[in-house]
Amino acid sequence: MKFLSYIKDSAHGIALSIDEQVLGLSSDDPNYPGSLDDLIGGPPTALADAAQTLIGRGEPLDLADLTLLPPCTPGKIICVGLNYADHAAEANLQVPEHPVLFSRFASSVIGAGAPIWLPRVSTALDFEGELAAIIGKPGRYIGEENALDHVVGYSVFNDATIRDYQLRNPQWMIGKNFDGTGPFGPTLVTSDELPPGASGLAIETRLNGVTVQKSSTDQLIFNVGRLIASISEAITLEPRDVIVTGTPSGVGHVRKPQLHMRSGDVVEVEIERIGLLRNPVTPEAI
Amino acid sequence: MKFLSYIKDSAHGIALSIDEQVLGLSSDDPNYPGSLDDLIGGPPTALADAAQTLIGRGEPLDLADLTLLPPCTPGKIICVGLNYADHAAEANLQVPEHPVLFSRFASSVIGAGAPIWLPRVSTALDFEGELAAIIGKPGRYIGEENALDHVVGYSVFNDATIRDYQLRNPQWMIGKNFDGTGPFGPTLVTSDELPPGASGLAIETRLNGVTVQKSSTDQLIFNVGRLIASISEAITLEPRDVIVTGTPSGVGHVRKPQLHMRSGDVVEVEIERIGLLRNPVTPEAI
Repeated sequence: MKFLSYIKDSAHGIALSIDEQVLGLSSDDPNYPGSLDDLIGGPPTALADAAQTLIGRGEPLDLADLTLLPPCTPGKIICVGLNYADHAAEANLQVPEHPVLFSRFASSVIGAGAPIWLPRVSTALDFEGELAAIIGKPGRYIGEENALDHVVGYSVFNDATIRDYQLRNPQWMIGKNFDGTGPFGPTLVTSDELPPGASGLAIETRLNGVTVQKSSTDQLIFNVGRLIASISEAITLEPRDVIVTGTPSGVGHVRKPQLHMRSGDVVEVEIERIGLLRNPVTPEAI
Repeated sequence: MKFLSYIKDSAHGIALSIDEQVLGLSSDDPNYPGSLDDLIGGPPTALADAAQTLIGRGEPLDLADLTLLPPCTPGKIICVGLNYADHAAEANLQVPEHPVLFSRFASSVIGAGAPIWLPRVSTALDFEGELAAIIGKPGRYIGEENALDHVVGYSVFNDATIRDYQLRNPQWMIGKNFDGTGPFGPTLVTSDELPPGASGLAIETRLNGVTVQKSSTDQLIFNVGRLIASISEAITLEPRDVIVTGTPSGVGHVRKPQLHMRSGDVVEVEIERIGLLRNPVTPEAI
């Protein structure tokens, strides 16, 4: 099942993408099955029931009429650095022994189609196409063997980064949390539709139509199951927490010459069988 | 004004600490002025009005009867590393040119009196006594000259850290976010009661009654105003966001021999004119 969250005519809606159609119900419709926020972490059949409702009662929608939202309102956003060997190599950093983890505030997250903000204080805006795993079942000390049971589905993330702020001191957080720099979505594809851990899927980032990152999710150093096991040694994972699993090689900052995103650019991250996340870049509206 | 949030007889309450008395109102009382969460970021007179209500109508409370809560439910928690020169020196790290920033999830935060959890996976639990600034007024690109207008008040934080997880790779986040490791509170002292930026206040951490950290908040490398200006270059600050300003020297990890907190220990962080944050240490209840 492939779900979307959206706004149309000022009302929130949920949609199912199926057989080239998008079938949606608005929150003011009596058949509205609830938001993805409500359904994620709900009873095990909540998403399947919602899909049936959307198939039976949903209105066919044109994506062009919708403001796409992130598939869910993220709880904790835990990001992984240096999780593709080729990216660690291009950044001149060693492949880590344990996952390199940092975090994003939900305040940095935007939906597909929304502008990525180029801030006043930097021109070093870079792309990072990534697979995102969305937690559906809570847990702590989750064993790797059961870890994927905790993933309700997968989505696409662009962990866009203000490089000079990221790298001006040892902690990356500030360069990863600028307002308007975290495109997420638009689709949530449920785990049952994908290979275990969403492994083996082609992932590609394109800047103005030119491919700048190209890899496969089977190249993750720490796969989704290992990440969940490792993170949950420290932190209780909860429904709507999001694990952003790291980016492959090709980021603009280490290119010669460097390639940074500029106003008017359009950046796309696409993951096979999950979806396409497209965002324009504009000066921030502040 | 010095406020507290608490639970008594299963009901949430707000209290004012004044003249050796604690005057409180429960959320089920008709005179309840709202929670600190409600009042922070409310109209400019909201806290003063609440204080008047508590002085006029509050019930005298015995602290021993209360479960103390963090003064507010934190929004974003932005922590500062290496912000006292003596601590940077003991950690063998350079005094940074820009604030070293990392973040905590609110899920790690506990109130005064609640146990700090010693996790199953580590014995390297360390203390870090810190001044916390609580944001009351939103803003982005806040100038240093106006920055303190955005602080509604100050509190006390123990940025307790699982050192081996913090230091096993370059990003500190995971060692700073273990469940049950972020004591915060109990008091919120409004900015008008304190020197600008809460500067010049004695700060002390005690482990089982023995002083282990002792400094003054005038030793901050980046003071509260500079931190707000710097952070808000990237991130819109919102009411209930918390800036945890860094710890002075004396942490257990760099001592010879190392000093880690153990089950049965009691750790106290006290800041002059703000308050005392006391927590026991226990094995985690999971």
